[in-house]
Amino acid sequence: MPDALPYGVDDRGRVVVAWGDAVVDLATLGGLDVGADVWTSGSLNAFFAEGPEAWALTRAQLQARLTPGSQVRTRPAGEVTLVLPFQVADYADFYASEAHATRMGQLLRPGSDPLPAAWRYLPMGYHGRSATVVVSGSAVPRPCGLRRAADGSLGYGPTARLDVEVEMGFVVGNGSTRGQPIPVEQAAAHVFGVVLVNDWSARDIQAFEYQPLGPFLGKSFATSVSPWVVPLDALAPYRVDGPAHDPEPAPYLRQREPRGYDVSLSLCINDTVVSRTSSADLYWSMAQQLAHLTANGANVRSGDLFASGTISGSTRSSAGSLMELAANGSEPIVLADGSTRTWLEDGDRVVIEGWCANMALGAVSGTVTAASHMGEP
Amino acid sequence: MPDALPYGVDDRGRVVVAWGDAVVDLATLGGLDVGADVWTSGSLNAFFAEGPEAWALTRAQLQARLTPGSQVRTRPAGEVTLVLPFQVADYADFYASEAHATRMGQLLRPGSDPLPAAWRYLPMGYHGRSATVVVSGSAVPRPCGLRRAADGSLGYGPTARLDVEVEMGFVVGNGSTRGQPIPVEQAAAHVFGVVLVNDWSARDIQAFEYQPLGPFLGKSFATSVSPWVVPLDALAPYRVDGPAHDPEPAPYLRQREPRGYDVSLSLCINDTVVSRTSSADLYWSMAQQLAHLTANGANVRSGDLFASGTISGSTRSSAGSLMELAANGSEPIVLADGSTRTWLEDGDRVVIEGWCANMALGAVSGTVTAASHMGEP
Repeated sequence: MPDALPYGVDDRGRVVVAWGDAVVDLATLGGLDVGADVWTSGSLNAFFAEGPEAWALTRAQLQARLTPGSQVRTRPAGEVTLVLPFQVADYADFYASEAHATRMGQLLRPGSDPLPAAWRYLPMGYHGRSATVVVSGSAVPRPCGLRRAADGSLGYGPTARLDVEVEMGFVVGNGSTRGQPIPVEQAAAHVFGVVLVNDWSARDIQAFEYQPLGPFLGKSFATSVSPWVVPLDALAPYRVDGPAHDPEPAPYLRQREPRGYDVSLSLCINDTVVSRTSSADLYWSMAQQLAHLTANGANVRSGDLFASGTISGSTRSSAGSLMELAANGSEPIVLADGSTRTWLEDGDRVVIEGWCANMALGAVSGTVTAASHMGEP
Repeated sequence: MPDALPYGVDDRGRVVVAWGDAVVDLATLGGLDVGADVWTSGSLNAFFAEGPEAWALTRAQLQARLTPGSQVRTRPAGEVTLVLPFQVADYADFYASEAHATRMGQLLRPGSDPLPAAWRYLPMGYHGRSATVVVSGSAVPRPCGLRRAADGSLGYGPTARLDVEVEMGFVVGNGSTRGQPIPVEQAAAHVFGVVLVNDWSARDIQAFEYQPLGPFLGKSFATSVSPWVVPLDALAPYRVDGPAHDPEPAPYLRQREPRGYDVSLSLCINDTVVSRTSSADLYWSMAQQLAHLTANGANVRSGDLFASGTISGSTRSSAGSLMELAANGSEPIVLADGSTRTWLEDGDRVVIEGWCANMALGAVSGTVTAASHMGEP
């Protein structure tokens, strides 16, 4: 069974690698060219700064060292507490799944063309809040905000429409220079690896605020990421051609195939799998997102997080949000205990898992807690 | 003449203070309780971390020390090169001027209610790109992007509608905790000071991309800030009542008067003053923006930059953008050399200056350079 050998950071600030069900401390492993100061720096950012050749060399050294039967000191994964693995510089969230964008358009703007006018011409996105990117396992207090109740009245209080979004994200390891766009074919060299992302969303807060400046408080309260960052090299065997572009995009967005990655994803609420989907059908690739974001001269930095946007399949049971799974509150889903959900309830535990064939990518989880500032803050 | 005694950072990484036309190096001044390591740290973030009491004490010590005739070693301001004075954590841009939001609505959505539906109920805003916040004086290469030409054709290339936005920003010195909204009356204690902001905008790129996720590449190529951060205490004598709220906002946004600041601003293109405006009429205050952004439980961090959005007065000559001054390209303005502008041309130098009565706040400048990546990147 192939091992992704993803990187994380434990609560002592040590860089660690997952190896099967065990965790290896890189500062004490030995045999690595990259020095111990990088492995004790408290985040992966120091490793990012070493550059793509050091990432590849380290992975090769780990693959040679971590073989069946080799004598390596490890800890059981269950005994290791992991923290946010990197300092997030800028966070941008995209909208790259055609099935998701189409279904959201149908639900929110029935009767009109469901896809936004620019959707097929460029990878749409917006900047999110870096401060509230949190590691898997962090509690997610139900956010409050201004929203309309079912009777149309407007008031400040806890969201009644708390949702999840199943996403994948990638982390920039290698920054760029302002004024120098990254060509799409060079984009992969800037990517360190991928994480699983839950882009929690408060649909009522979002609906009231989002025109014309886009999502803001409906999203900015929490974005959970997996504690393990999977090196992009580990995904190389799982590359797939992306869906055909129609119309053909502008030259700066044209990418040779295979541009996609076939990552299977499951969404689980209180131990009931409510959706299974895959990243294979994302219309816009990671490289296209990176080329687009820098096409106006903006630079990226080490630690930038790019999220895909909700990953949904064409059937409703493969949708990556409750908004879609329960048809905007109108068709509840049923959990294994017989209870139903249109939106998340306090106490609900949400887990997103990812894998490529039989290679696990880990999980991102979070539990909803009661609003800590009911009524007025 | 009162001195704002703003803080900056020079190109040796030393914290400096502007004193009239001179610059004082705090690491060598002596007589300050805050230690030299803070003044040689390369940014103001270390000073932010000292907290509000240290900020007030330092200002009092500087006011006592920097009096007419006192013997202090200084350098002429013209001999000092200043860098970006703080590391920007998250950057959020608001839309707080009613005259601006109204005029933009009239230009972009004629015949409908010009103000977005939520505008009077909450301070609308969005997250911008921290990586491209640059210090005054930085060149601004004309950005490229996908935009429609006058004949309706879509293509990638340099923007034909490069604009400025006259804004004020404030810098968070004192962060907060996720899950704990900042009450509006406590917001000022989190603010270190203010800067002048030019939120450069490419109107054609923005127009094509911005629905429904908001501004992205039309804004993310550059945001210029003044090199001097004016402590909020320096603005205390210039507080004014804000415009009346109608309707009364939700309790978490209700603030005692005076909630505004009367900062005069001028916009200058190639030495022609093309607009004079003031921050006194901003509908939503700094404290209201801070209370709103945290009302969903999001935390702020030291180094967060909040910008006001374009500051425009009710007359067109007091508008803070070319979009308004030249009526979306239809009514060119005339510069002192007889040339006309609807949008910025390569080589144009833009300067925004700010002052309160006779206290100068400094300036933010930038010069447009030719697109460095014409055609395809």
